Amino acid sequence: MIENINIPRGVFCPVITPFDEQLRPDKQRFVQQCHKVLQDGCHGVAVFGTTGEASSLSVDEREILLEALLESGIKSSLVIPGTGCSALTDSIRLTRHAVELGCARVLMLPPFYYKGISTEGLFRSFAEIIERVADTSLKIYLYHIPPVSGIALDLSLIQQLVNAYPDCVVGLKDSSGDWTYTETLLKTLPGFGAFSGSEVFLRDNLTAGGVGTITALANINSAEIRTAYDGFQDEDGESLQSAITRRRKIVQDYPMIPALKAIIAAITGDPNWARVRPPLLPLGTDQTNRLIASLIQDNFLPLSGVTSPKTL
Amino acid sequence: MIENINIPRGVFCPVITPFDEQLRPDKQRFVQQCHKVLQDGCHGVAVFGTTGEASSLSVDEREILLEALLESGIKSSLVIPGTGCSALTDSIRLTRHAVELGCARVLMLPPFYYKGISTEGLFRSFAEIIERVADTSLKIYLYHIPPVSGIALDLSLIQQLVNAYPDCVVGLKDSSGDWTYTETLLKTLPGFGAFSGSEVFLRDNLTAGGVGTITALANINSAEIRTAYDGFQDEDGESLQSAITRRRKIVQDYPMIPALKAIIAAITGDPNWARVRPPLLPLGTDQTNRLIASLIQDNFLPLSGVTSPKTL
Repeated sequence: MIENINIPRGVFCPVITPFDEQLRPDKQRFVQQCHKVLQDGCHGVAVFGTTGEASSLSVDEREILLEALLESGIKSSLVIPGTGCSALTDSIRLTRHAVELGCARVLMLPPFYYKGISTEGLFRSFAEIIERVADTSLKIYLYHIPPVSGIALDLSLIQQLVNAYPDCVVGLKDSSGDWTYTETLLKTLPGFGAFSGSEVFLRDNLTAGGVGTITALANINSAEIRTAYDGFQDEDGESLQSAITRRRKIVQDYPMIPALKAIIAAITGDPNWARVRPPLLPLGTDQTNRLIASLIQDNFLPLSGVTSPKTL
Repeated sequence: MIENINIPRGVFCPVITPFDEQLRPDKQRFVQQCHKVLQDGCHGVAVFGTTGEASSLSVDEREILLEALLESGIKSSLVIPGTGCSALTDSIRLTRHAVELGCARVLMLPPFYYKGISTEGLFRSFAEIIERVADTSLKIYLYHIPPVSGIALDLSLIQQLVNAYPDCVVGLKDSSGDWTYTETLLKTLPGFGAFSGSEVFLRDNLTAGGVGTITALANINSAEIRTAYDGFQDEDGESLQSAITRRRKIVQDYPMIPALKAIIAAITGDPNWARVRPPLLPLGTDQTNRLIASLIQDNFLPLSGVTSPKTL
């Protein structure tokens, strides 16, 4: 049983990164979105994840956004920045930068260019970062998202890392979509800070001893996800879970990142939110219309107060 | 039929990147290796490819190495730097830097984090880079290496790019390992600057109208590959091809990048060449011994002049 009172629990939002008309990161809207999800009930923000298009941003762009976020008054302890890159030196630089700014907790992708990498190669990769950042406050959450990164973090790797760095490697985000992965992890390493990568598994995760969820849908549905988190053991725990799962499934029929951005554009009436950086594409008008209609039908969006998609 | 007299032909070496004991890029050995393969017969160097562990290097590190290379006296026209990154802004910065230094020909990976990206998304990605670099001297070679990047560049994408940017998108490196891909490409776009990613397909490539090869083995076997290139239509063309194919197959039984580095370490007697950056691992002693023994048996390495692997 790992005992770590410092492991945070709750609902964390992997915040989208808005872009301006030049496709530059839009600092102001980014900060605004972080404040919004915290006000709506998130325990914290996991910026620079897959949903945040972080791997489409340069190291400089990520540093500038993180600094802007902290300058805006959000406490560093509420922020879990993604710092794992393809290049070892980029991961080291971003992790050091985060820790120096007080964001001791980071979410770390494995290096994702080469495929078929051995467990030992992945171990050495994380170990080099830990040794070079050399800060005892650093707490790493491993980012397991094989469908995107192409790299699976197997259980033997996690055990090896926890054995070598028990005060540093404290958790994981499971975005594999395979619930048995988290389940096995929590059985093998009880107390490990396992976040589900989708709120679909939130109740299962908490019941199995996990710590919460870092989920894309928190960008638009934080209040309901927070309620389901708080009430997972209550009498209506199951129906709270069903509700957030149903919302998720509506959005999941579309490319996730453009869909979330299209929804925020619709809610705010501000088409600037809809931009994505290539290689992603914005949702087309037809897709946006269908998605918004489905959400209105599900009573997620009120009929008034949502900008007609045709103005996007 | 595309007519482009500016398309270079020949054998290009995707040069390995040596690292010092701190795992920093070793500028001096890097420059030395580039000069060596040019002296040994390569027509040019394709630095910062997969073999060069480029995706494990930061943008700064790549810029510094390219500057050192040009300062060492190698002509910019002989250098094809890899400039495709996961982040759009990194690809733009590296491409602009290369072109400004006179390296107008670049080899470009597609953005490789997100998977299942549409043709339109990939098109927009390359188009943004071309439009923003905005230099008419820029000549892009697309880098098709789906087993590693996880992203295939399908024929419709290439046609779309060639239609939109006929003076800019001039060629491709095919590292798919699937010869029919190059063959189909050359039938559809005769005159397109198609390099095979392995010398195994060199003769087929040249016969089909391709322009040569950019192959990892040129790091250790440039002279023979050059001979096979020059003589592909000669009477002994087939046996020249067989010889380089046989060498390749010996090395290919091992992880390619660590194997090449181990061979250079053995040839030079300098173990510094053997280092790789995580997530790659150096070849183990047993593997190195077996590889070197196979190359000696194939008369590739002379018995004398090669440092006994045990001193590595």
